[in-house]
This record gives sequence, C-alpha cells and structure tokens, in this order.
Amino acid sequence: MELLEQRILSDGRLLPGGILKVDSFLNHQMDPQLLQAMAREIKRLFADVRVDRVLTIEASGIAIAILAGLEFGCPVVFAKKSKTKNLADTLYTAEVPSFTHGNTNTVVVSREYLHPGENVLLVDDFLATGAALVGLRALVEQAGGTVVGAAVAIEKVFQEGGNRLRAEGMKVESLARIAAMDDNGITFC
Amino acid sequence: MELLEQRILSDGRLLPGGILKVDSFLNHQMDPQLLQAMAREIKRLFADVRVDRVLTIEASGIAIAILAGLEFGCPVVFAKKSKTKNLADTLYTAEVPSFTHGNTNTVVVSREYLHPGENVLLVDDFLATGAALVGLRALVEQAGGTVVGAAVAIEKVFQEGGNRLRAEGMKVESLARIAAMDDNGITFC
Repeated sequence: MELLEQRILSDGRLLPGGILKVDSFLNHQMDPQLLQAMAREIKRLFADVRVDRVLTIEASGIAIAILAGLEFGCPVVFAKKSKTKNLADTLYTAEVPSFTHGNTNTVVVSREYLHPGENVLLVDDFLATGAALVGLRALVEQAGGTVVGAAVAIEKVFQEGGNRLRAEGMKVESLARIAAMDDNGITFC
Repeated sequence: MELLEQRILSDGRLLPGGILKVDSFLNHQMDPQLLQAMAREIKRLFADVRVDRVLTIEASGIAIAILAGLEFGCPVVFAKKSKTKNLADTLYTAEVPSFTHGNTNTVVVSREYLHPGENVLLVDDFLATGAALVGLRALVEQAGGTVVGAAVAIEKVFQEGGNRLRAEGMKVESLARIAAMDDNGITFC
C-alpha cells in the first residue's frame, strides 16, 4: 500500500536493535485518515471472505481493528494482556512472547466473545516473528472458530513470521512489507 | 444518547462492588457501528470548538478516540500505562489511581505528541472518580496545551468525578449519565 509505505519512509524512525518506530502515526499518535484508508484496503483484500468477527490484541492493534470492523460490519474483540496467571474457566488464554519487550504476555479473551463456527479475521499493527498472530489463532481455535486470515499494517518480512504462517496455510496480507532495514534505510518488497 | 442508554440496559451487567460491565459492546467486544454513532455525537457536542488533537488512555479509550479523531479530522494520541518508573525526559507523565483495579498507573505521553498552544479534547469510555481525566489534563497542561473539554461514553454521576471537573470549569459531556445503579437496575439522569 503506497500511502503507508510513503508514510513509513517520511515519518518512521530506525532505532538500534532492529526497532522501527512508527509511533508518530500508527501506535502512539495515530492518523485516523491513514488508518481508515488502511482499513478499507484490508476490506478490499478480504472482500471475498465472510468475516464474522475481527480479533486484535491490545493496545496498538485496536485502532486499525475498530476501523476494519466498521468496514466489515462485524464486532471487534481485543485480546487483553493479563497480569495474573489466574486462568479462569471463563477465558480463552494463550502465551505471546514479545520480541520488543523481551518478555511473555498471557493474552485472554472472554469465552463469551469467540464462538464455534465463526470466521475470524486477525488484525494487528506489526508482524515480525508472528508470535502475536500465533497466539490469537490459538484463542480462535480454542473456541472452535476458523481464522480466515490475518491483516497487518507492517510486516518485517526478513523476520520470517509471516512466511511461516503462510506456509501453514494462513492467508496473511500486509499493507507494507519490509524486506530490509539497515544503515541504508528501509527497503520494501 | 438514547442509543447508548438502550444498549446499556439491554447488554450491560451489574456486578457486585458497583461495577458496570459493558464489555459485550464497549471495551472488550466492541460494536463499531455504535462506537461510530457515539463519535458523531461527540463531534456534534463539540462542534463549536477547535479541536487540534484527541487524547485518550489505553486500552479501552482507543476505539472511541480514533473514531472521534476521524470526525474531527485531527490526530489521536493515547497515553500509555507505563510499567517502569523510569521518567525519561522525553515523556510527560501523570499518576492515575484506578477505582476498578485498586492500584495506581503511571501514564505517559511522548513529548513529541503534545504541544504548546494546542486545543485538546479528552476522550474515554468511563467517568467515575475522574482520575483518568485529571491525569490526562495534567499531561496536556505539562505540554502547555489547553483542554477544551472531555467526552466520555458513560458517566457514573453518583461518583461525583464529572461534577467536580465541571465545577473546575471543564466542559464534560457524557453520552450516558447514570444516576444510580442498584438492585432495581440502572437509572439514567
């Protein structure tokens, strides 16, 4: 998606350790018009699929997800990062290791908000190792639903998470696909 | 706002300890159409004010805030709950005690995303003690900006936070105002 790639080049910042900061328009300060355009592109990419529900993970996936849900006309659920290990039988739970923070979060969704037989689209801001999408997929599968695909804003293709999920049969669509980030800047696929 | 009040009556649940659960449509599972209608009502309520920026707090304020930002055509910033006490000089910080969780969060916004002279509208899902709005106002004031008001989805009027902020001169608009919650159910103002 040209609009997003241009914005990454103009406003993104590369930090040491392979971190791409896009918090001026995507995940701290957010540009609603850009995010709406991204949500419409997600709708176009999954136009041929029945989507009953959008599932994302707090906090930075929520804005794109609610705008995507508006396009699909379906409910949006965000998985919560749980501070407790109290795995109540009212929750679906999964473990999600964080590349950025070097820890592991337990993410949870109430059993009331994922159901058998539903088609669920996963939405998130970043795809690197794929750990978040793997965790969200586990939640959907625990509920007996079907993941119809994943839509992410920015994929770090060189980290292989997206390609591994595709090899497993998941339809993964990324609005900006980064082939390389180094001293020479950012190269898109 | 009739639409929201009806939804609270049909889908909200009262739990012991004065907790109103609205996580089936507002802050875990979310209804994008309802949230968009709420954002348009917020725009109507603040139509006569210049809004340069919408400020909310993660995670459950983000969805309403991004839709409000779309209506106002301005950037949206969410304050992050910081796990560390590392008050870097790149951040504005405030302490926000949580009524629901019985703890205190440090909330932070990068100094890059709040500026002197800006008109900022605060947006959140709940207003009870007013602690979140007080914290967000402190962030804006540290930056030299002006809070033009606060728009919240649900105000628990009996907890006085909203009226205290109004007495201090803040324009506070709530889409649903709860006068009382008890065994007889929910009464709106």
